[in-house]
Amino acid sequence: MEIGFIGLGNMGKGIAQSLIRAGHRLRVWNRSPGPSKELVKLGAEVVQSPRDAFGGDAFISMLADDHALREVVLNGHVLPQKGGDTVHICMATISVGFAKELAQLHRARNIPFISAPVLGRPDVAAAGKLAILAAGEPQILDRVQPLLDAAGQKTWRFGDEPSNANLVKIAANFMLASAIETIAEARALVEANDIPADQFLTLITSTVFDAPVYKGYGGIIARRQYEPAGFKLALGFKDVRLALEAGEAAHVPLPLASVLRDHFLDAVAHGDELKDWSAVAEVAMRHAGLVAQSG
Amino acid sequence: MEIGFIGLGNMGKGIAQSLIRAGHRLRVWNRSPGPSKELVKLGAEVVQSPRDAFGGDAFISMLADDHALREVVLNGHVLPQKGGDTVHICMATISVGFAKELAQLHRARNIPFISAPVLGRPDVAAAGKLAILAAGEPQILDRVQPLLDAAGQKTWRFGDEPSNANLVKIAANFMLASAIETIAEARALVEANDIPADQFLTLITSTVFDAPVYKGYGGIIARRQYEPAGFKLALGFKDVRLALEAGEAAHVPLPLASVLRDHFLDAVAHGDELKDWSAVAEVAMRHAGLVAQSG
Amino acid sequence: MEIGFIGLGNMGKGIAQSLIRAGHRLRVWNRSPGPSKELVKLGAEVVQSPRDAFGGDAFISMLADDHALREVVLNGHVLPQKGGDTVHICMATISVGFAKELAQLHRARNIPFISAPVLGRPDVAAAGKLAILAAGEPQILDRVQPLLDAAGQKTWRFGDEPSNANLVKIAANFMLASAIETIAEARALVEANDIPADQFLTLITSTVFDAPVYKGYGGIIARRQYEPAGFKLALGFKDVRLALEAGEAAHVPLPLASVLRDHFLDAVAHGDELKDWSAVAEVAMRHAGLVAQSG
Amino acid sequence: MEIGFIGLGNMGKGIAQSLIRAGHRLRVWNRSPGPSKELVKLGAEVVQSPRDAFGGDAFISMLADDHALREVVLNGHVLPQKGGDTVHICMATISVGFAKELAQLHRARNIPFISAPVLGRPDVAAAGKLAILAAGEPQILDRVQPLLDAAGQKTWRFGDEPSNANLVKIAANFMLASAIETIAEARALVEANDIPADQFLTLITSTVFDAPVYKGYGGIIARRQYEPAGFKLALGFKDVRLALEAGEAAHVPLPLASVLRDHFLDAVAHGDELKDWSAVAEVAMRHAGLVAQSG
Repeated sequence: MEIGFIGLGNMGKGIAQSLIRAGHRLRVWNRSPGPSKELVKLGAEVVQSPRDAFGGDAFISMLADDHALREVVLNGHVLPQKGGDTVHICMATISVGFAKELAQLHRARNIPFISAPVLGRPDVAAAGKLAILAAGEPQILDRVQPLLDAAGQKTWRFGDEPSNANLVKIAANFMLASAIETIAEARALVEANDIPADQFLTLITSTVFDAPVYKGYGGIIARRQYEPAGFKLALGFKDVRLALEAGEAAHVPLPLASVLRDHFLDAVAHGDELKDWSAVAEVAMRHAGLVAQSG
Repeated sequence: MEIGFIGLGNMGKGIAQSLIRAGHRLRVWNRSPGPSKELVKLGAEVVQSPRDAFGGDAFISMLADDHALREVVLNGHVLPQKGGDTVHICMATISVGFAKELAQLHRARNIPFISAPVLGRPDVAAAGKLAILAAGEPQILDRVQPLLDAAGQKTWRFGDEPSNANLVKIAANFMLASAIETIAEARALVEANDIPADQFLTLITSTVFDAPVYKGYGGIIARRQYEPAGFKLALGFKDVRLALEAGEAAHVPLPLASVLRDHFLDAVAHGDELKDWSAVAEVAMRHAGLVAQSG
Repeated sequence: MEIGFIGLGNMGKGIAQSLIRAGHRLRVWNRSPGPSKELVKLGAEVVQSPRDAFGGDAFISMLADDHALREVVLNGHVLPQKGGDTVHICMATISVGFAKELAQLHRARNIPFISAPVLGRPDVAAAGKLAILAAGEPQILDRVQPLLDAAGQKTWRFGDEPSNANLVKIAANFMLASAIETIAEARALVEANDIPADQFLTLITSTVFDAPVYKGYGGIIARRQYEPAGFKLALGFKDVRLALEAGEAAHVPLPLASVLRDHFLDAVAHGDELKDWSAVAEVAMRHAGLVAQSG
Repeated sequence: MEIGFIGLGNMGKGIAQSLIRAGHRLRVWNRSPGPSKELVKLGAEVVQSPRDAFGGDAFISMLADDHALREVVLNGHVLPQKGGDTVHICMATISVGFAKELAQLHRARNIPFISAPVLGRPDVAAAGKLAILAAGEPQILDRVQPLLDAAGQKTWRFGDEPSNANLVKIAANFMLASAIETIAEARALVEANDIPADQFLTLITSTVFDAPVYKGYGGIIARRQYEPAGFKLALGFKDVRLALEAGEAAHVPLPLASVLRDHFLDAVAHGDELKDWSAVAEVAMRHAGLVAQSG
């Protein structure tokens, strides 16, 4: 298929690589030029503006957040006034509210639109093994299913309303953040009792919490090695806020997310926003007086 | 080996069965006579008092909580004034503070003592597949290791101080309770957005949270089927309190445990203390106005 | 002075009355015509649009929130491209972020601008006894001080940056909301112990909490009489969110505000957004199983 | 009247002084001898043991907590096996549970017993201006009312069950702690925005929070001058725990108290337990990165 692709951060670049490998033709654009060059070597064509990227069978946007997507796609007048065959696949983790606004705008202009955020880290994206969370009209989803198949191991569909996929993604990330905070508090508790954190975390991840997410973050937290960042704390904080916003819109109190928000804020106040989001674990340690304050 | 065993609740009975199956001889006692009868069929001998159970190679206590253990073992004068060869193996989930008090008392009387609480549900106990968390002097642990091997799949040792094993058990249960609450809040969020909870939980437990604990509790919570109880809410609440107590003693704030405490209390106020502890998930639903109040 | 005044809700109408009483000439506008008619009887002139209200010595805006102010004043093109002598006095409780945006816009157009939100209820406004929280350049403040003197008992100045006054107002309202929640939790605790809430609250407000705010809300909460609303729960919830937003911008975790947010959300989920904001006290009662669920 | 009085801490000594001044005869005992000597100068008789203090018209106990009272009065066998005319007036802030246990024990031995904890600081106690919270059988209360009148400005009665008075005292202290935390969070918010804390607190305590408690703690917190301690943080933390315990017994979640608990724990972890309990305000400052970590 002919695809326009904008947003080549760690995740976007990995997805683009998978699509090229599967034989699709990509016109790519990114704010900074570095990632585009890498993709050119694999056969992608670089275009000069997001607007030039729109067209063909699909237009994939993988930007950082609501703000970036609004700036580039809406304010940058990327979308045509009247839609054609190009399906806009929005893979970014954006808010439920903005996803609803986008769906309405696309309907008004008759542009086919689906939300398809993903679960997985950059290396998983590059391997084409992501879990794709998709929502939108079934016939539109069917048309771009080959692309989703190339990008991910499996596509999970959540109904006709595109924003559903965003909500599911936000709920999943809330659960990940909550798991990290849980590990962090348990770690502080065992360390304050002179039990080595790695012994405890090895037990836990070998038994009741035998899952990749606990093993991965458990290891990082036990070693307190939060750099390089797999997923930046600033972005994780954003996702916690999206969960709180989605909860607010639907009148759902999320007290765990409130605790997470306070701790991410504490982490940012101490200068950790560029570290991996599991660096939020330092907050529980600081509150218990187990580490000196960094900031 | 010759073993005295007191406390034949769901977990205790399962462990006793595993020990008998491995060829050990058990003298058993339980407050209510039912479970003892079942074990007699397997070859156990029933004794008339906890005091009669003490003796032989090991004395295993598997009572419900600090209070029961204090009543039966301390106030019931089960422990001899001067120790001999019988090792007291305390497998109950008791507080860190009480475990320290017990360790001191046993040392004063020269009675060999270890803590060996377990991770796993009753069916896992009956299959001899528990994870055993053990702490105490290595030579004492070595003496009873054959018993621990019969009861569990693997023994994890956490140092010389018996209470360490209790702390690890409490930290693990705190993590389980936190996982349940996380599922509950995420469930409320997706349902309030008209996304079927089972679809969301299937996704989650097939991808980032592909772990038995999420699958098990996710299923119960999606179906809202909290009876029969695998682990009673009243006991789960007790364990959250033990985590808070242990945190307090070590000056470790555990804000997630504070949220759990408030929600378990809310669940008890609404009459759910005899249901499975995952019934705490109804609290998030009630707060969001998604279900009518039960109590 | 010649004054344009837009936004005649309960508070706005009271302030306008005080200004007219002090001899100032008002041109007034309000979305719904009712309140304007009352003021005409006192001598105000009604104008047909917010734009017509701008001009003279001062332009006072007292709209409900960021959204209303943005719609009416910015999108409605009320502000001239190039300022003159008319001072814009923004008395609404708006966000710190929006206040900064407004200050910048006014500076760019050379329109004199100050923030002057108020503390007090509608009857206090009508009596001209409000506390005025003001911030902006001193010489601008000095020019309109006679108006502030007519509207309030005392003006408290918080520096040159207009948004400071908004922050102070938000912090004060956070403290009020926190006092209400505190009364609510204490009330649930004493009632669950069969101690009459009014006896407890009478003691408290006669001794350590001998302050109007505790007496007022204590009485409402003891009687559970949340209607008619002195200050709507939906607006109180907005102010809690403004506190959280301001905290976020400045990297200040506010865990009490997080609890308040969750409880206001719970109240909204149970249909109480039009009652007095002290109706949030019902949440603590529901969680303790002391009242049947209303929604 | 003839009175035995044990426990001459800051509060106890003040009350004893008021009683002597009103013409009552006191036999006093205290663990450390210093305070007794001061009272001897005023005419008190020093006795050698708590047991010697029991007798006469009333026996007043004003010890620090459950533990001290249990040690001295119960384990020290102060109470006679069979009661006479001496009324035991327990003025300490003890737990609701222990107050119930004491009431039962006194009933069993036929010893007249009332709870009469107080609200106020040591200087208020010495001036005889305390608020007395009393509960117990009316005819017993009537007998000792002259003593309560001498110690306090007013006695508030809360029914026949002595523990009611303790619950009311605990609820009041919870409200004070919550007010302190509220001031602390608001202070962090304004300071992070470069608004001087004392300006904000002066406004607040001159308007909506014109109450001694806000003025007193507001000043301490604005100046960050937590020593000497008017009421030690360790004791304030104890009272927050008593509130949580009382809530737990009655199935009342108190999420604000949960936040308070976490912050007091954080304060203790940073070495502030001997400072004034308003030093808990430093926690909000540390979490916002506004002060370097002290411990």
